[in-house]
Amino acid sequence: MNTITAPTVTAALLIIGNEILSGRTHDANLPYVATALNEVGVRLWEVRVVPDLEEDIIMAIIDLRVKYDYVFTTGGIGPTHDDITSDCIARSFGLPLVEHPVALRRLQQHYADSGLELNEARRRMACVPEGAELIDNPMSAAPGFRVQNVFVLAGVPSIMQAMLDGIKPTLRGGAPILTRTVLCNLGEGDLATGLQAVQESFPAVEIGSYPRFSSGDYRVSLVLRHTDAEALEAATAAVCELVQGLGGVPRVDADETA
Amino acid sequence: MNTITAPTVTAALLIIGNEILSGRTHDANLPYVATALNEVGVRLWEVRVVPDLEEDIIMAIIDLRVKYDYVFTTGGIGPTHDDITSDCIARSFGLPLVEHPVALRRLQQHYADSGLELNEARRRMACVPEGAELIDNPMSAAPGFRVQNVFVLAGVPSIMQAMLDGIKPTLRGGAPILTRTVLCNLGEGDLATGLQAVQESFPAVEIGSYPRFSSGDYRVSLVLRHTDAEALEAATAAVCELVQGLGGVPRVDADETA
Repeated sequence: MNTITAPTVTAALLIIGNEILSGRTHDANLPYVATALNEVGVRLWEVRVVPDLEEDIIMAIIDLRVKYDYVFTTGGIGPTHDDITSDCIARSFGLPLVEHPVALRRLQQHYADSGLELNEARRRMACVPEGAELIDNPMSAAPGFRVQNVFVLAGVPSIMQAMLDGIKPTLRGGAPILTRTVLCNLGEGDLATGLQAVQESFPAVEIGSYPRFSSGDYRVSLVLRHTDAEALEAATAAVCELVQGLGGVPRVDADETA
Repeated sequence: MNTITAPTVTAALLIIGNEILSGRTHDANLPYVATALNEVGVRLWEVRVVPDLEEDIIMAIIDLRVKYDYVFTTGGIGPTHDDITSDCIARSFGLPLVEHPVALRRLQQHYADSGLELNEARRRMACVPEGAELIDNPMSAAPGFRVQNVFVLAGVPSIMQAMLDGIKPTLRGGAPILTRTVLCNLGEGDLATGLQAVQESFPAVEIGSYPRFSSGDYRVSLVLRHTDAEALEAATAAVCELVQGLGGVPRVDADETA
């Protein structure tokens, strides 16, 4: 078992949408959010996917915002009847949903430029929980928003990414999480006992073992993660020694963050 | 807001693994599980991703197995120190972890055939919570297992799929969930008010609206889901009428299940 000892800054991602749960749409937001958070030293600790149903969304928000330093939501902030995220966030904080004047001005400008009517449905996209801070949407104007530690983002990956890139500098994380990957031409079962010993020697370094398929001789990836470069190097060296001691050949890939 | 009225058979998927939360590995199991469950009339209602940590896994299992008819887990049943799923399932049910004689025989046969040693680490893969039923692994012998309504599957997609295909006939679902997709050359904001009215006329049909990008004129997918073919056709016809009434051209795609 891995032991994570640092006072880690943690986050949860709440993916809202029937289309993900039906298998129709493949989520592309999880890996992007995970990687972006790693870069600022925030650790994505849990992900949930829930349907477009009030009770499920509200219960998940209430649970996650207490458990984690940050919560990010994706999906459900468009103009149609199944877009209920903003209302659910307001209700989960006990806040009224109000039209934000700056959000409204941005929508007015956007729809004036595009020649489309800013009708009542589209105008709903200017509504946020009272006191929420807007999150810029450089692509299609309709903003996301932040209430306390909950960040509400679009579900469309390109828009979600632009929103997250915008708020990333405002997130307060710990040290970035560094990774080393040791590829290895032995089986997981051959490595297991020695690997457990290495894990016990470096309890704060997270060591994962993942079988690889259709990758020739290099059948296992051993992934080491930690915020401290020195401890990470020492644990990586110990893993390489283990592989060599068992007659294998280790191959180290150095990642920036992952 | 969608209303789901049928006494639906529900499931949750618990994805266990740091490699998904770090963004390093892109989960491929969610869409496969969702689609397979649709086919047997089981609705995937929630997905969670948790790290390889005892407390997180156990708390998720305890929560999900009470809330849903079925729970499927993926990941963490290999031979290394970070494979702790079986132990966590046992603990969440208050059962001892025991070596299953049939699982052991399968592993003995598999490793004899492959010329690898069935060492202590690999032998751990024969351990399951007392009384668990094995789930066949036609690819690499190490079985999954079932305890009550919890099905424990491998994380490697090809193995997970083989396991799930094997148990699918044993799942008791409701009627399969049918889908119709109406593509439409209008904006979401133009459709929203009329679509809400259609939703209110067919409260049991789940209607979702999804913007599409780089798809030419057909900028929105309207996805209708229900177990009853007749209600689904009537709602689909109402959506098509709505689109035409607004000057658009609807294009209906008939899916089998989704």
